[in-house]
Amino acid sequence: MSDDPIRGGLSGDKVLLGGEATEELYDQGSFGRPVDGGLQLSLVEAAYLLDRSRIAVRLEGAELDFRSFFEKATAIEAGFEFRYVVYKDLRERGYYVQPGVTDFRVYPRGGKPGKTPAEFYVRVFSERQPVPLKDLVEPIKVTRQMRKRLMLAVVDEESDITFYEARERELKGDMKVEVGGGTATLLEDRVMLWDPESSERIHEGGFYGKPGGGRLQLSLVESAYLLEKGLLGIVDRTGEPLSLEEFVRRSRSVEEDFDMKHLVYRDLREKDLVVKTGFKFGSHFRVYKRVESSRKVPHSEYLVHSIPEDHVFHLPVVSRAVRLAHSVRKVMVFARDDGGMVKYLEIGRLKP
Amino acid sequence: MSDDPIRGGLSGDKVLLGGEATEELYDQGSFGRPVDGGLQLSLVEAAYLLDRSRIAVRLEGAELDFRSFFEKATAIEAGFEFRYVVYKDLRERGYYVQPGVTDFRVYPRGGKPGKTPAEFYVRVFSERQPVPLKDLVEPIKVTRQMRKRLMLAVVDEESDITFYEARERELKGDMKVEVGGGTATLLEDRVMLWDPESSERIHEGGFYGKPGGGRLQLSLVESAYLLEKGLLGIVDRTGEPLSLEEFVRRSRSVEEDFDMKHLVYRDLREKDLVVKTGFKFGSHFRVYKRVESSRKVPHSEYLVHSIPEDHVFHLPVVSRAVRLAHSVRKVMVFARDDGGMVKYLEIGRLKP
Repeated sequence: MSDDPIRGGLSGDKVLLGGEATEELYDQGSFGRPVDGGLQLSLVEAAYLLDRSRIAVRLEGAELDFRSFFEKATAIEAGFEFRYVVYKDLRERGYYVQPGVTDFRVYPRGGKPGKTPAEFYVRVFSERQPVPLKDLVEPIKVTRQMRKRLMLAVVDEESDITFYEARERELKGDMKVEVGGGTATLLEDRVMLWDPESSERIHEGGFYGKPGGGRLQLSLVESAYLLEKGLLGIVDRTGEPLSLEEFVRRSRSVEEDFDMKHLVYRDLREKDLVVKTGFKFGSHFRVYKRVESSRKVPHSEYLVHSIPEDHVFHLPVVSRAVRLAHSVRKVMVFARDDGGMVKYLEIGRLKP
Repeated sequence: MSDDPIRGGLSGDKVLLGGEATEELYDQGSFGRPVDGGLQLSLVEAAYLLDRSRIAVRLEGAELDFRSFFEKATAIEAGFEFRYVVYKDLRERGYYVQPGVTDFRVYPRGGKPGKTPAEFYVRVFSERQPVPLKDLVEPIKVTRQMRKRLMLAVVDEESDITFYEARERELKGDMKVEVGGGTATLLEDRVMLWDPESSERIHEGGFYGKPGGGRLQLSLVESAYLLEKGLLGIVDRTGEPLSLEEFVRRSRSVEEDFDMKHLVYRDLREKDLVVKTGFKFGSHFRVYKRVESSRKVPHSEYLVHSIPEDHVFHLPVVSRAVRLAHSVRKVMVFARDDGGMVKYLEIGRLKP
């Protein structure tokens, strides 16, 4: 490596260097892209190298110091500041990073371009940026097709970065349940099964509801599921039997998200998982792979929150949800209705 | 205590018992309210005693079993189900509970009506119920005037209860800061101070910004505060100095909540607290009482989230925030603008 910086010029949103840069920067450091006998750097790469005095950059005959270059770059390229923060962080941790189909691609530790395939595609976000669900679903799809992993790098207002991995997730449990019996009453916004024997059987069989005083209190989604499976009858307070349709209609009027939750609840139960409310964790459900007995309840593995197809993530909210899930050793999963199929999106912390 | 249940009748939203109930239920158990030589029970009290076969209740000549009574009570009184769940839980934990100005008042462990003053006023909520800020602020005020504590009992869809205490909180730190100097540039959505000496002084002096490469990256609220205190100059990318007014105008266009955050940030700094972003915890700020040196950063004590005066709490969101704060040993505080004064509302878990 020479001590003199390599000279180049800012042109549009690139910095162009002569052919002599190729060996030192591209071959040795995987910086830039060789074009027409020279080397082309993105603004982020150029700022990084300029800060280390490995290149010098001129514009209209005058040399730009780091400050001038940086000020210009943020004006030329929306999001430059965030990408620079992330690029610098990953490079300083010793990773090879290159511009990619998302924002960057990152090579595994010890690997480098030309030697090993990239491991991650990276999407950079500002914490202030609302992120529509589809802006995660698309990159996840592309990333999986390319056999990579998707890294989300979220830059907060003080330029700290939180790294997440987002991926589609298959959920599967180990709890086949087919017990039922009895008739319950729909009260104001929950359902009460009065008969001690049915209460015990349904609670012990599938860990449904909350028992007390020989009765069983069931939530609306639990009750709808048991009703549609023919495992429970439900009447209103006058003793009139309720059809599934009528029960769902009334549940909707109590609970805005009822349809969405009902769909996800059913899907999770059909996948042999045990589903309970996640209220204490601020999510719709906490999910167990299996509950042998209500006297020996194991650790629940997932927090599942249902979101609509047009959901927009607010990153501080995602940060809180994922952080809480990790602190109680659970996996945070967002469930959505994808044309009648429920799909699960896991977002987890990543420590590069 | 006699083995035969005491006979009474359902009348409107009360159950009326004869005078013989006063000694056994009121004197011994603090159930009901003596009126006209008899004892009047609320529906919740009556359901509790009926479930224990301590009373029998008739309506129009026929005796009501627990199921019929309960079904009727939920139809008569909105929210009966939630209040019953909470009343029963607290009674079964051995507390004396009476109807009160909020939903209930609860006596301290070992205390009872007539012997000791009540300790808590209890407000019961369903997790589904949106709670406007003023519906907490008012009871907090009343509760404090009466020298009680305010307990929030939130009943989730499976009838589990989470207990919180809500109270006004004074925040005060121990970090007087008056250091500054230098001129920084407003970039896309953050501010960069370029001069190494000023960067070091401002960062070390008040734990402002994030240092790196001899520069200091400052957030918008930090910059606005330093600018208004005359501790920092700010220019735009063309070198044009920005007035506080202009800086605030531009910050607002980047950050929707800027004014609210700015107000709270200033108030916390003026109270000698050290304020940093709380993004990793999903809140606006994490707050330290004092930071001696950036090389020895202590544990931050509060998570502070600013909310508007017309804020409506969604209890699952509160649940997530408070749970996360506890898991990282911090106190969750909601800050609001109360006619120009910033007030702080702490919500913490309570384990009765």
